[in-house]
Amino acid sequence: MMKALLNPEKIAVIGASKTPEKVGHEILSNLIDGRFKGEIVPVNPTTDKVLGLKCYPDLKAYGGNIDLSIIVIPTMAVKSAVEESLAANAKAICVISAGFKEIGKEGEALEIELAELCAAKGARLLGPNCLGLINTHHSMNASFATHMPMCGGISVISQSGALCTAILDWAASRHLGLSKMVSMGNKADLSETDFITELRHDDDTSVIVGYLESIDSGKEFIEAAKETAPIKPIVILKSGVTKAGGKAASSHTGSLAGADVAYDAAFLRSGVIRAATFEELFDYATAFSMQPLPQGRKVAIITNAGGPGIMAADAVELAGMEVCALAGSSATALREKLPAAASVGNPIDVLGDADSGRYVDAVEAAQGDDAVDAIIVLLTPQAMTKPAETARAIAECTNQKKPILVSFMGGADVMPGRDELVASNLPDYPSPERAVGALRAMCQYAEWLKLPKREIKSFDVDKKEVAKIIKSHAADGKNQIGEAAAKEIFSAYGINIPAGGSATTADEAVALAEGIGYPVVMKIASADVLHKSDMGGVKLNLGSADEVRDTYEGMMESIQHLLPEAKLDGVYIETMCREGREVIIGMTRDPQFGPLLMFGLGGIFVEVMKDVAFRLAPLTETEAMDMLKSTKSFALLEGVRGQAGVNIPAIINVIQRVSQLVTDFPVIAEMDINPFLVGAYGEKSVAADARITLEL
Amino acid sequence: MMKALLNPEKIAVIGASKTPEKVGHEILSNLIDGRFKGEIVPVNPTTDKVLGLKCYPDLKAYGGNIDLSIIVIPTMAVKSAVEESLAANAKAICVISAGFKEIGKEGEALEIELAELCAAKGARLLGPNCLGLINTHHSMNASFATHMPMCGGISVISQSGALCTAILDWAASRHLGLSKMVSMGNKADLSETDFITELRHDDDTSVIVGYLESIDSGKEFIEAAKETAPIKPIVILKSGVTKAGGKAASSHTGSLAGADVAYDAAFLRSGVIRAATFEELFDYATAFSMQPLPQGRKVAIITNAGGPGIMAADAVELAGMEVCALAGSSATALREKLPAAASVGNPIDVLGDADSGRYVDAVEAAQGDDAVDAIIVLLTPQAMTKPAETARAIAECTNQKKPILVSFMGGADVMPGRDELVASNLPDYPSPERAVGALRAMCQYAEWLKLPKREIKSFDVDKKEVAKIIKSHAADGKNQIGEAAAKEIFSAYGINIPAGGSATTADEAVALAEGIGYPVVMKIASADVLHKSDMGGVKLNLGSADEVRDTYEGMMESIQHLLPEAKLDGVYIETMCREGREVIIGMTRDPQFGPLLMFGLGGIFVEVMKDVAFRLAPLTETEAMDMLKSTKSFALLEGVRGQAGVNIPAIINVIQRVSQLVTDFPVIAEMDINPFLVGAYGEKSVAADARITLEL
Repeated sequence: MMKALLNPEKIAVIGASKTPEKVGHEILSNLIDGRFKGEIVPVNPTTDKVLGLKCYPDLKAYGGNIDLSIIVIPTMAVKSAVEESLAANAKAICVISAGFKEIGKEGEALEIELAELCAAKGARLLGPNCLGLINTHHSMNASFATHMPMCGGISVISQSGALCTAILDWAASRHLGLSKMVSMGNKADLSETDFITELRHDDDTSVIVGYLESIDSGKEFIEAAKETAPIKPIVILKSGVTKAGGKAASSHTGSLAGADVAYDAAFLRSGVIRAATFEELFDYATAFSMQPLPQGRKVAIITNAGGPGIMAADAVELAGMEVCALAGSSATALREKLPAAASVGNPIDVLGDADSGRYVDAVEAAQGDDAVDAIIVLLTPQAMTKPAETARAIAECTNQKKPILVSFMGGADVMPGRDELVASNLPDYPSPERAVGALRAMCQYAEWLKLPKREIKSFDVDKKEVAKIIKSHAADGKNQIGEAAAKEIFSAYGINIPAGGSATTADEAVALAEGIGYPVVMKIASADVLHKSDMGGVKLNLGSADEVRDTYEGMMESIQHLLPEAKLDGVYIETMCREGREVIIGMTRDPQFGPLLMFGLGGIFVEVMKDVAFRLAPLTETEAMDMLKSTKSFALLEGVRGQAGVNIPAIINVIQRVSQLVTDFPVIAEMDINPFLVGAYGEKSVAADARITLEL
Repeated sequence: MMKALLNPEKIAVIGASKTPEKVGHEILSNLIDGRFKGEIVPVNPTTDKVLGLKCYPDLKAYGGNIDLSIIVIPTMAVKSAVEESLAANAKAICVISAGFKEIGKEGEALEIELAELCAAKGARLLGPNCLGLINTHHSMNASFATHMPMCGGISVISQSGALCTAILDWAASRHLGLSKMVSMGNKADLSETDFITELRHDDDTSVIVGYLESIDSGKEFIEAAKETAPIKPIVILKSGVTKAGGKAASSHTGSLAGADVAYDAAFLRSGVIRAATFEELFDYATAFSMQPLPQGRKVAIITNAGGPGIMAADAVELAGMEVCALAGSSATALREKLPAAASVGNPIDVLGDADSGRYVDAVEAAQGDDAVDAIIVLLTPQAMTKPAETARAIAECTNQKKPILVSFMGGADVMPGRDELVASNLPDYPSPERAVGALRAMCQYAEWLKLPKREIKSFDVDKKEVAKIIKSHAADGKNQIGEAAAKEIFSAYGINIPAGGSATTADEAVALAEGIGYPVVMKIASADVLHKSDMGGVKLNLGSADEVRDTYEGMMESIQHLLPEAKLDGVYIETMCREGREVIIGMTRDPQFGPLLMFGLGGIFVEVMKDVAFRLAPLTETEAMDMLKSTKSFALLEGVRGQAGVNIPAIINVIQRVSQLVTDFPVIAEMDINPFLVGAYGEKSVAADARITLEL
């Protein structure tokens, strides 16, 4: 079916119009101007010829089968046009017309109907409310965008049609080739997931570029991206990053996870490279489509001017890469070729009067040097500079083993050189910083490709016990699982909890405490008391039977007095936890991407510094460790200034067990272990407090 | 003298050459092509006519006086050319020739000699090793850059000549006007400070743009910038940001202050707007030169496409500004003018088929609405879009009361529109994010302008006492002032220290402790014991005479045993400090900008999170408060989650007293009060430990 959309042989244009400026005219004329090699079938009951082609009143009159039907007629007539297309055996339908979901409920219902009609016949629907699509390698411009781009390796999928027009205009001006351009419109059927899957094995596509405002089926998206990213890079600009999530959160984790955090975690998981701005999107895409990936982070900079060289060096270091010097032997060899005043340090300064030969000498030296992973070439238009000649010479000497990214800074003087660069597959940037930004994205992707195969550990746990506890809460309509039961759940998944139990009388409390051993902690048990500490519902360090008895009685009385409506279920008594580093391990469920795990150092690090990391569950041991390392306070876990480090493996272990728990039980909506107390390496760590919220 | 440089009437070109491509030929031909209206005096002994002008063998032969002499001859002949120029009464000399400081010691000596020759005659020297200078408003292109820019309000000063060529090329392609362009070369005499001072009252300059790799006289720079910034914006790209400072630091503050921190502090102090990248430099400059400043942070976005509107809204929120909606009445009025499908929310979506009229309606509505401080206009090239017409229409309807920044996204299709925008003083950016970035810089500058006048508090302190302590240390050649004496110094400046004193015998120690009252702390006193705690040289919470005596004897013995070479000066005994929030207040002296104060929460916040703030001394109360607020952990000082806040005024007070101390005593090279213990609001705070390093 995707073949019918992207590589059709027969295309119907329903709504083909004689009137210039009408969209139905533009699409037909674009198809013709793009030299589409298959058959074009214009449909319009008011005329029998359009742009030199025979025009049919309807597809029945045409009589034959078609592959792709482009529909560009008033909203109310679209449905019958879809039916007519399906009757002509169309396997792909593209509805350009607007007036659907974007205008309200009625439109949404209509577009769902269209999708269902197509699905019933095994056809796929693109749009509605879109610009159409382009496949340069099939000479097909089935859009109303005037620019038919050159052939190239970048395929673009976009949720904004207007952005497509801007991209096509820009690409034309830069002589940049594209492969497919798909405007997805309202995504009633076909979405990013389908195209990422389809383009995975498309030989004409080397990079997939996406502009998205939403992802509607998160899990499928991740699956599709995860399969595709190892084969070709996917670069996505996801806008709407600052929209606050509307959902009220009942956990710490929930309140810290903004809507955008889940997208970051999903992209990280699936190897998608996220562009933060429109310019990054194509800065990255051109680098990926034109150059090989770097094997490491060591960057040689070649320049004919000191200033831009320093700018590039600054950007390289700020990006976490390394400005490297040539190895001794290559430096010496280059030294002999360049004038005395030139520098073979890094940046390599070929001087203001550099001709193309000096650039070639420097590029060849860096290319042949094992100490160099990537090359940034900079040029400013000085008196003797020959940008076009230099660009051609660099292109000729590249061996395509290491990425070369270029910035010819200036305007009209360097433009002939910039055009030569693009024509020779050398990505060109308006500033050194932009070139370095693209190189950083290449490094990150190259490192992602080298990650070991993901292996999710499976722990031996008591799943039945957890199911039982959850079932009993669900039966009572309780969506909050309090500390005691939550700890039982974690214990069933092999997470240490303090010895403890529930008591509903002072005598029971004393008996429990005696069994556990002093000192103990007493906490009120009640779903109605939310902030236990504030209500005097937590007493620490009780050292004797008398203290336990007095505290029990005092707590019951005072809390009942403060909250007369609260139903008190006695107390929870447990061993007083010894000191340890407080960390928080939590989960909130994202509507698109599912369970989102959080880790952070406890207390102020979470609440004031917001120093937390998020990853999607299920995760691997490596990913759990990476999660820890991505917090700023990680050094505290390792130990600083003579302080001993903590038992990091214990944290990694618990994160993976939590990952398994929330994967096994999708009914768990949110949870916090806060604090999880981590002792020194080798010591036991323990979930000191916990809460779970169910989605009933 | 600066008039002779920037607005000369007679210019000599020493080294004027007949040979095209020679720099001496280029400069002369650029002067002629630029239609310089004054007299040009070519000097070259080998010819009597160059480019149609009479050429003199030397200035003596010419006989008259000149204002500016441009020297472009081999290095070794430069000195006599300078002498010859001074003899002809030149008040400004520009040495284009290279071969000076940049090649080593000998070259440096020669350029110092040139500067001294000029100074002796009251003349100013530009360069050597530079590209020359341009003043469009004086029709003077005294550089070897081929592009003479259009007249405009942006003046550029650059430490990189090559960057000037790139800027000129770029500005020409964008039809962007410049005022002055000065290549400063080696800055043997004239530097950024001089030009910032000179351009302050230059009516032809509306914005000063600088590219700097170093600032050589920090204090003068700050003075000059501070006087200029309130009159016109100064935007600077300072490169070399990641170069680590080479200086070994003996304080915490010193080790945390990278070389770049001082530049940030200096720019902050003087109102300089720092550009982080080359693109930001001109993104900001064009906004400042073309548009009025915003009165607040509320931004209206006008777009013909949803996607770019969302990108802009994301960028506005991430930049700390506010995406604002029109007030009810303007929204209603605009609603009536736009088609039903348009949105008058924010972004204001004038729809894909918007003509210039709809843009005008939207801009006028936003312009007239008090709820709007600034306007971002976005356009993508869709079927009906008329970029040039739209640009002209927007330009005509602006009332110049609020900044309007524009992004016409695309390539050749929108270029006619972009050219119209620039011609109409509407700054145009290739992406919404770049437009928003420039607007943020405008907001920050506008807010800086509104800051109250800086008033440095002067505390009543015992300066003599401090002078005495420092003098005695200096006399003994001691550059480290230990805890006891350092605390005396701080006490003399009105900073609370714990009650305490020095003892050199066990009996003295006991007597001291009895006087202070138990519990006390005992610390070893020795300049040779650097890490007191690690050596067992700090004992806390001593509660009785016996404990004090035993501890004294034990400490003396064990430390002498561990460090047999150390000279021990007894102990320092003081009252045991009660609990408080630990903060660090420190100072390190930057070689360029002088005393750099640091503030941070103590312990891990400084050491692991590096959550510290730097400001130059002397500072105001407002600046001290701003320093606190710029740390991420500031909320901890205010109090979070039921914890009480601390005595913030006490910290502000001590920072100002330290500021006064380090300003009064330039001999203090570094110092830390670490920790400064801050109690609850109203409680006493105290400098619990302190050290000072002198520059002897």
